[in-house]
Amino acid sequence: MELKGACIFGQSGGPTSVINASAYGVIKTALESPHITRVLGASHGIQGVLDDVLFDMSREDPRELALLLNTPSSALGSCRYKLKDAGTDDTDYRRILEIFKKYDVRYFFYNGGNDSMDTCNKISKYLLAQGYPCRVIGIPKTIDNDLFGTDHCPGYGSAAKYIATSCMEIYQDTHVYSTGTGTVAECMGRNAGWLTAAAALASPSGCGPDLIYLPETPFSVDKFIADAEALYRKNKNVFIAISEGIHDENGVFISEYAGQGAPADAFGHKQMGGAAAFLAAEIKQRLGAKTRAIEFSLLQRCAAHCASRTDIEEAFMLGCEAVRAATGGATDKMVALRRESGKAYRVSTELVELTVTANTENKFPAEWITDGGTGIAPEFFAYALPLIQGEPEVTLENGLPRFARLRKVRA
Amino acid sequence: MELKGACIFGQSGGPTSVINASAYGVIKTALESPHITRVLGASHGIQGVLDDVLFDMSREDPRELALLLNTPSSALGSCRYKLKDAGTDDTDYRRILEIFKKYDVRYFFYNGGNDSMDTCNKISKYLLAQGYPCRVIGIPKTIDNDLFGTDHCPGYGSAAKYIATSCMEIYQDTHVYSTGTGTVAECMGRNAGWLTAAAALASPSGCGPDLIYLPETPFSVDKFIADAEALYRKNKNVFIAISEGIHDENGVFISEYAGQGAPADAFGHKQMGGAAAFLAAEIKQRLGAKTRAIEFSLLQRCAAHCASRTDIEEAFMLGCEAVRAATGGATDKMVALRRESGKAYRVSTELVELTVTANTENKFPAEWITDGGTGIAPEFFAYALPLIQGEPEVTLENGLPRFARLRKVRA
Repeated sequence: MELKGACIFGQSGGPTSVINASAYGVIKTALESPHITRVLGASHGIQGVLDDVLFDMSREDPRELALLLNTPSSALGSCRYKLKDAGTDDTDYRRILEIFKKYDVRYFFYNGGNDSMDTCNKISKYLLAQGYPCRVIGIPKTIDNDLFGTDHCPGYGSAAKYIATSCMEIYQDTHVYSTGTGTVAECMGRNAGWLTAAAALASPSGCGPDLIYLPETPFSVDKFIADAEALYRKNKNVFIAISEGIHDENGVFISEYAGQGAPADAFGHKQMGGAAAFLAAEIKQRLGAKTRAIEFSLLQRCAAHCASRTDIEEAFMLGCEAVRAATGGATDKMVALRRESGKAYRVSTELVELTVTANTENKFPAEWITDGGTGIAPEFFAYALPLIQGEPEVTLENGLPRFARLRKVRA
Repeated sequence: MELKGACIFGQSGGPTSVINASAYGVIKTALESPHITRVLGASHGIQGVLDDVLFDMSREDPRELALLLNTPSSALGSCRYKLKDAGTDDTDYRRILEIFKKYDVRYFFYNGGNDSMDTCNKISKYLLAQGYPCRVIGIPKTIDNDLFGTDHCPGYGSAAKYIATSCMEIYQDTHVYSTGTGTVAECMGRNAGWLTAAAALASPSGCGPDLIYLPETPFSVDKFIADAEALYRKNKNVFIAISEGIHDENGVFISEYAGQGAPADAFGHKQMGGAAAFLAAEIKQRLGAKTRAIEFSLLQRCAAHCASRTDIEEAFMLGCEAVRAATGGATDKMVALRRESGKAYRVSTELVELTVTANTENKFPAEWITDGGTGIAPEFFAYALPLIQGEPEVTLENGLPRFARLRKVRA
């Protein structure tokens, strides 16, 4: 069934190294589509729709758009705006419909993680209920890899590559002195251990962490110290990777032990950080070791210079596929990656129900956590190694990356 | 005058991304030299000489040695051992001479920063005083770029490239939300602002820090907050780079404000860190802004995946040149880089007196600090941009760097 009209594309949630590759896939394919009359980019995701701040993507220089493939973070701006249930308060939804009507929007593409798919799902259901013909497709994105319904999430492979590479380099650095040292590296991942597990990818080279603690296993500081002490006494060195989200059996975050509780965002999530500093100080005090805490912080999600080309290509592919699926008739779905069976790594795309994927978390498999909660099983390597393959082709200027510069002309 | 015998090569001080490129230059050239009968690598610098832990570099696989070009940190191990004055206590020197005689060592190459050149100088002077024929050549290395007598220091270009690239990426990440944010990024550099100034290299792209604070200018927290507030009120965003070594007019480190004083090393240096966290907390408290502190920590000195090819090539060249100079008759010198005049960047090597370079600090020029201590002058860009050019040719295995694996066979 043919549907002709404008499209709106929005980016939402935390940045990744490759979310703009999906943006480029959407924008390029939409600009070329005979079904799409106008390609609009929302400033700061759904916030830009509510505020009527939309950019006309046809006014951008195609060469700048192509640079989006290697430009980290959200070029159109992101948001963490949470839509209320339409049943409770439909103010936002009525406003969204008003804007959609104003611009004759018949296609809506929303790129983000769990919370963003929730937003996308709610909008889709509202439009269906209103009988307003508009095809809604979600595009997955999150470094956390905890989005349900896709084999893996664009953004994860690049973050995993950054973490594994950095762990190898840190290992080299922290093994140069004959005096002992303890190193605690902290990875993002509030509830899912995918990112922290990526530190294990450094291990086959001999340069990985000795101990890895994911948020899926309740954390005990005493056991941690005992684990660390055994290795430190033996090797005069211990290198540990932890998730920011490690918490004790009562659910208290270890970062909160240091009194670093932070205010929650609109989705009730607290800004994490500080667990590594706390644990490094504990090792120092209890073992008398020289220690260092390292937070990968923002760089694990925005270090595009160390992105995975596989990740970039898949992010781009999903952007393209979202538009193709919608113009082909699909709606109320998220485009997802399916891993083909067989020895060689191959993925195809498929469509999954937004209802199913929204707000369901894909946790790290319990059976992949080994060694009493300090190790990662071989199955993870088979899963994750293909995702970090390939180097990005970064355009350089003066020895530094040349990021896309969008004009952002108001529609 | 021909001198034939073994050589010892040692690495000393903090790691860099390219110190092993110099090692490869020394080892390769020494193995090929008709004047050098045996190439010995000292385990953990001068400590390995004192302990008689020396490796026979001819026993290494040449392919592994070649991988040293892109292997960060000190492959032979490093140390921070401080030699006493020979006039006060010559125990160490007598031991060094004993080892040199045991292995018929006639060439000594020592690769490091200010403290290491002090070690190198003291050994050189002792051997001269003893009339033991041995040619001693220092090879510069420090990310801090504060070594006197060379246009710039191997290790600096790569660290500068990492900092500038990471600043650009952080800028992208911290400008995605419409809500305000303050970001404080902390660079190494105890006394010299070269590394922190490298953050300014991100500015021509439009993705640099708004404010840059070097340790050369006394730091005032109140002025800092006023500077940050003016920008934050205007842009709802402020991005600041600081040196770990910023201190107030009484010489008290800002990191110590947070009670994070750490024990000093053998050279009387304290381990820094924590200034960014303290200042981010100050901004949060005083301006009510959401803030994030980012420490580049070890990665700025070991992120070989983001090294400068120019830096790698110069580090290698200086290693080769050290051996050529010594076998040609030079001693008691450090090999240094001299920038040729002319528009295109070209360097040559020269020899400088160890006496002069040892323990003299090359500080960041006061006239390159602008905007009331928050900006960097154009002259710095002309100086530093050539040093970050070119990408490394990293050998990969499973999508991750393949670092050199040395056998380290005892001599």
